[in-house]
Amino acid sequence: MRKYRVIIMPREGLLDPQGRAVAEMLQDNGYSVGEVRVGKVVEIELPEDIDVNLLAQKYLINPLIEDYIVEEATPSS
Amino acid sequence: MRKYRVIIMPREGLLDPQGRAVAEMLQDNGYSVGEVRVGKVVEIELPEDIDVNLLAQKYLINPLIEDYIVEEATPSS
Repeated sequence: MRKYRVIIMPREGLLDPQGRAVAEMLQDNGYSVGEVRVGKVVEIELPEDIDVNLLAQKYLINPLIEDYIVEEATPSS
Repeated sequence: MRKYRVIIMPREGLLDPQGRAVAEMLQDNGYSVGEVRVGKVVEIELPEDIDVNLLAQKYLINPLIEDYIVEEATPSS
């Protein structure tokens, strides 16, 4: 098994109301933040012979509205 | 400004119904997946003098039920 982290973000240019809410909350608390975007992350353990990119594209992502990146996660101890 | 990625996961040992739903869906489609956990990610641009860990602990995380890690994100082009 190999452990991956699939990070799924709203596509650039699409509205991200959650991100905007976080940005406004931080600004209201005195932080001069730049852009904030909120997405989701799926940590998944897969057999070595499974292509995590294919699986993500087929089952985890909506490519119309989401972009994603895959990281190899450090194995949990 | 510096761009960070705050990855927020349900704490180990807590129920993660979203993660279980994804695992079952993949198993139903023939994948022998191991553990799956679903969390959220906040990409945030902050001035260099802001401590992203303090900000995350104070405003982004519920430490009773969530763990987090911070990564430096590659700057958007």
